[in-house]
Amino acid sequence: MFATYDVIIVGAGHAGCEAATAAANMGSKVLLITMNMQTIAQMSCNPAMGGVAKGQIVREIDALGGQSGIISDKSMIQFRMLNRSKGPAMWSPRCQSDRMVFAQEWRNTLEQTPNIDFWQDTVSEVIVKDGRAYGVKTSMGMEISAKAVVLTNGTFLNGKIFIGEKVFGGGRTAERAATGLTQQLISLGFESGRMKTGTPPRIDGRSLNYAVMEEQPGDENPGKFSYLDTRPLDKQRSCWITYTSEDVHEVLREGFEKSPMFTGRIKGLGPRYCPSIEDKINRFADKDRHQIFVEPEGWETVEVYVNGFSTSLPEDVQYKALTKIRGFENAKMFRPGYAVEYDFFPPTQLKLTLETQLVGNLFFAGQINGTTGYEEAASQGLIAGINAHNNVHEKEEFIIKRSEGYIGVLIDDLTTKGTEEPYRMFTSRAEYRTLLRQDNADIRLTERGYKIGLATEERMAKLQQKKEDTARLLQGLKETKVKPEDINSWLEEKGSTPLREKSTLLSLLKRPEIGLDEAQTLLRLTSDLPIQHTEAIEQAVIEIKYEDYLNRERINADKLSRWEGLEIHPSFDYDRLKALSHEGREKLKRQRPGTIGQATRISGVSPSDISVLLVYLGR
Amino acid sequence: MFATYDVIIVGAGHAGCEAATAAANMGSKVLLITMNMQTIAQMSCNPAMGGVAKGQIVREIDALGGQSGIISDKSMIQFRMLNRSKGPAMWSPRCQSDRMVFAQEWRNTLEQTPNIDFWQDTVSEVIVKDGRAYGVKTSMGMEISAKAVVLTNGTFLNGKIFIGEKVFGGGRTAERAATGLTQQLISLGFESGRMKTGTPPRIDGRSLNYAVMEEQPGDENPGKFSYLDTRPLDKQRSCWITYTSEDVHEVLREGFEKSPMFTGRIKGLGPRYCPSIEDKINRFADKDRHQIFVEPEGWETVEVYVNGFSTSLPEDVQYKALTKIRGFENAKMFRPGYAVEYDFFPPTQLKLTLETQLVGNLFFAGQINGTTGYEEAASQGLIAGINAHNNVHEKEEFIIKRSEGYIGVLIDDLTTKGTEEPYRMFTSRAEYRTLLRQDNADIRLTERGYKIGLATEERMAKLQQKKEDTARLLQGLKETKVKPEDINSWLEEKGSTPLREKSTLLSLLKRPEIGLDEAQTLLRLTSDLPIQHTEAIEQAVIEIKYEDYLNRERINADKLSRWEGLEIHPSFDYDRLKALSHEGREKLKRQRPGTIGQATRISGVSPSDISVLLVYLGR
Repeated sequence: MFATYDVIIVGAGHAGCEAATAAANMGSKVLLITMNMQTIAQMSCNPAMGGVAKGQIVREIDALGGQSGIISDKSMIQFRMLNRSKGPAMWSPRCQSDRMVFAQEWRNTLEQTPNIDFWQDTVSEVIVKDGRAYGVKTSMGMEISAKAVVLTNGTFLNGKIFIGEKVFGGGRTAERAATGLTQQLISLGFESGRMKTGTPPRIDGRSLNYAVMEEQPGDENPGKFSYLDTRPLDKQRSCWITYTSEDVHEVLREGFEKSPMFTGRIKGLGPRYCPSIEDKINRFADKDRHQIFVEPEGWETVEVYVNGFSTSLPEDVQYKALTKIRGFENAKMFRPGYAVEYDFFPPTQLKLTLETQLVGNLFFAGQINGTTGYEEAASQGLIAGINAHNNVHEKEEFIIKRSEGYIGVLIDDLTTKGTEEPYRMFTSRAEYRTLLRQDNADIRLTERGYKIGLATEERMAKLQQKKEDTARLLQGLKETKVKPEDINSWLEEKGSTPLREKSTLLSLLKRPEIGLDEAQTLLRLTSDLPIQHTEAIEQAVIEIKYEDYLNRERINADKLSRWEGLEIHPSFDYDRLKALSHEGREKLKRQRPGTIGQATRISGVSPSDISVLLVYLGR
Repeated sequence: MFATYDVIIVGAGHAGCEAATAAANMGSKVLLITMNMQTIAQMSCNPAMGGVAKGQIVREIDALGGQSGIISDKSMIQFRMLNRSKGPAMWSPRCQSDRMVFAQEWRNTLEQTPNIDFWQDTVSEVIVKDGRAYGVKTSMGMEISAKAVVLTNGTFLNGKIFIGEKVFGGGRTAERAATGLTQQLISLGFESGRMKTGTPPRIDGRSLNYAVMEEQPGDENPGKFSYLDTRPLDKQRSCWITYTSEDVHEVLREGFEKSPMFTGRIKGLGPRYCPSIEDKINRFADKDRHQIFVEPEGWETVEVYVNGFSTSLPEDVQYKALTKIRGFENAKMFRPGYAVEYDFFPPTQLKLTLETQLVGNLFFAGQINGTTGYEEAASQGLIAGINAHNNVHEKEEFIIKRSEGYIGVLIDDLTTKGTEEPYRMFTSRAEYRTLLRQDNADIRLTERGYKIGLATEERMAKLQQKKEDTARLLQGLKETKVKPEDINSWLEEKGSTPLREKSTLLSLLKRPEIGLDEAQTLLRLTSDLPIQHTEAIEQAVIEIKYEDYLNRERINADKLSRWEGLEIHPSFDYDRLKALSHEGREKLKRQRPGTIGQATRISGVSPSDISVLLVYLGR
């Protein structure tokens, strides 16, 4: 009934969709198996993409030739560049999405990708022979062959939903859980654990009093995620900000004795940096209020998402507490918040390609690896999809280094250190974050995506154009001199010291009070350089303003990356290196890092242990 | 947490959505409870609305002020007026729908209806006190008060899905069943039964060879359902026709031993007139082929619906048989067909208002009453919603007579005769079908909808305009005379006898060879009557062409309707009428018809029994 596929993708969320399109676009014959074709690419939690560090990931996915950026652009209802007041390494694109349009755009994209077939079913088993994956078995009793399998099961593996004292089986509210697969993987020798995540109640926007909330509109000149020619928004919807209060907290505390978290009924650890509201008031007992973002769920719908109010307290407590929030006095609830607990597999069981160490051609991506976040999931799907394709076609492993992208940081962290709680990306996790900016993801990664056959010609041409325009601009800025009389009144207006003599534009752009916005005006006022290419201007200005700093970072990264890639054989005998510390040796033996880079990031492995290793490995 | 609602609607399918909007638009405070807000108004089976007798129902829903017609117009991708070659009583509008757009348009409509609140949950119990409904209890443990409750549970009550030898609990594939409610209703004294329905596999349209199929495009001048100003289509998608063959049947027969229907595992009876393919080849063993309609599921999607191939045979048999169908040789399946068995409540337990006889203010609508079809469900929802509102506001019952509309026929049939198998509407079920046409549903029903506060002013104004224009046209047609020299060449071209002397347009329109299309040309050629109002022309021409016949029907209907309404007291003592036949008396005692009209339609009650009753009741 089924042909033999190159790659079977199990699950059609953010990870599964990226994995499917990546492998298919590279030329693999792909089967995407989902429990329900009507619920492909749901935004199960908040209706938004991007954010700090996460927006950079979406840009990286796009630069490599993935789809999340394009789909975010097509479905967004608001765009903001976060942290604009900080340095460019912190600038982070974020959008609000139309939940329904997002899912539709993904489904359309998947359907329009020629090599993807679909099958609606639940996978209950991976077919494994001689330590390699050869396909899947389903609850409908199908056996489907493939050369590689990517599991992206999200929160569905033995998913359990908690609201107060009530527990339902389910991967999302009103949807079934998937059973069977965990047990089989354990029987193959995998280690599994439990995690939990949660979501806030959804509210009828018509019942809220926005007049007493703070409006948060989109950017005046909204940007976008994709380096391709998607259209920026010409109208946007606002979000609204309000706050909890002591009154709210008091009501919530009444529910603590019925809380599945505090009573120990939920065993899995939740995301530390995206805690439930009960967690927040418990852990930060001194804070008398917490911020609440009221986010519209789409262009048309009246349903709103109460960001910051994730909870699994009893629904009557949720409701009572909600109505104590300013602006929520008459709130009507559509659906209560809930927590969901699910199986994950500690990601130290994976290679950097996201292939499992135990079973060849079996890949894991997304929440099954203990991460949280759409962007984290999507990027893992992309890497798993690429490497599944490469494995099947006997091409080399595709690994992004920590110095190349947040995706590299993410996967290296996961596979090397593992995670005890849902892993979320932060800029602080990256050693080279000044290099890993949202503006240069294409410069960092598009060529790599192109070389493996994923990024298109069009994408490469755009990158080339941007590079050329940037170079031309940099040259022009060095050469173009402005006269004091042409510019001084403008400089004074900006609070910048007037010129005494002719100066290059470059020297003016180095001034801290001349930001990117000012730079654009300056160029328009004084030069006839090609200023229509805003991405090239951004690039040139950043290069100029942060030149010394960026150069220093690059040298550091180069130095480390020379070690970084140095391979350690999987069967390396650490016992014969007497100079290793006891703890270092034990950790190295247990985790068996594939490279020196990985070894450096194992907690317990000291710099002197690394030196010992380097000496031996013939640095 | 909840206010007391006027009406709670349980379920958000075709019946629930119409019930909610009807009650809310009439002024009731409505709560719509659905198991999953992401799956409101799914077209669970074929992506189409209308068809023979069903299209008339959609027009009636629209005429009364319901929403299904408007939403069908907004989501359709193809329109055809079926039976155009037959008399106007048989003309039946039908459209193919974009499944996703249909669901979205319903959700938007519901959200934009001010009096509707939403709650995502599963209803497990109706709160009943002293024989009246006072609200519901849910599986989340909520108790929500209301003055009336409408149950529209579709196929979800103890739903069981069958594919070959496999059985899953579920109301639709990949969705949970609803448990608890049936047991409670039985404990209250309700009788319940099991029914089954089925759906065909869904296929990847890219894998089909349309070149060997027959194209079925939409109408050249596509019509629409709503009497309001929705826009007709300016582009359409085609369907395709192919056929099964002996080869296909042979493969299917191989699966019979694993068929849940033939092995007796499915207890419920399926829809006789929408049988599964295995049923068809079993019952019509002499037919060597059956027609298959390949229907696109939307504007964009590659998924197609294989109309005519509903099946619950094992999925490998489904697949193997499919690939034997001409054009399906390389077919790829997205999801297999399946049968679903579910609880229904014999509708003889209902009043004509769809209120249950046993529990006041409790209404049933849709498949829970043993019907099949979106249109049948939607119309019941509308009537239940209206009557729930009227009950709560102490207004009189809203009942459509058999002579007024198919909706009247449907509900009278259900409540009087009950049904052993899923009930579907046919034109043959209506005694007065020449009066119950798709072109005059507004004339029949809009005023009634307006009087109860459901149909809008705009709707009434449109009706008024149509009536006036029709009258003006009829007058003009009687008065306008054409000369032989002006028209004879056209008449000859149409194969119609040339005129010898001046004649009225009316006499020409009576000619059988002058159809509606010709009539429009004739009017354009010869008169300056107001011919922009095509609905008025249609009306006038039908009145002229079928004048005698329609008048006779109206007289018959009037006669019968004089008896029809004659009430019989619920405690009427049939035993004292010695002249009743034995069978007639038993049936009358069991079914206790509320009126003479209902009594006439009880099988086993003879015309002479009716005469006896009429004599006694003082005709």
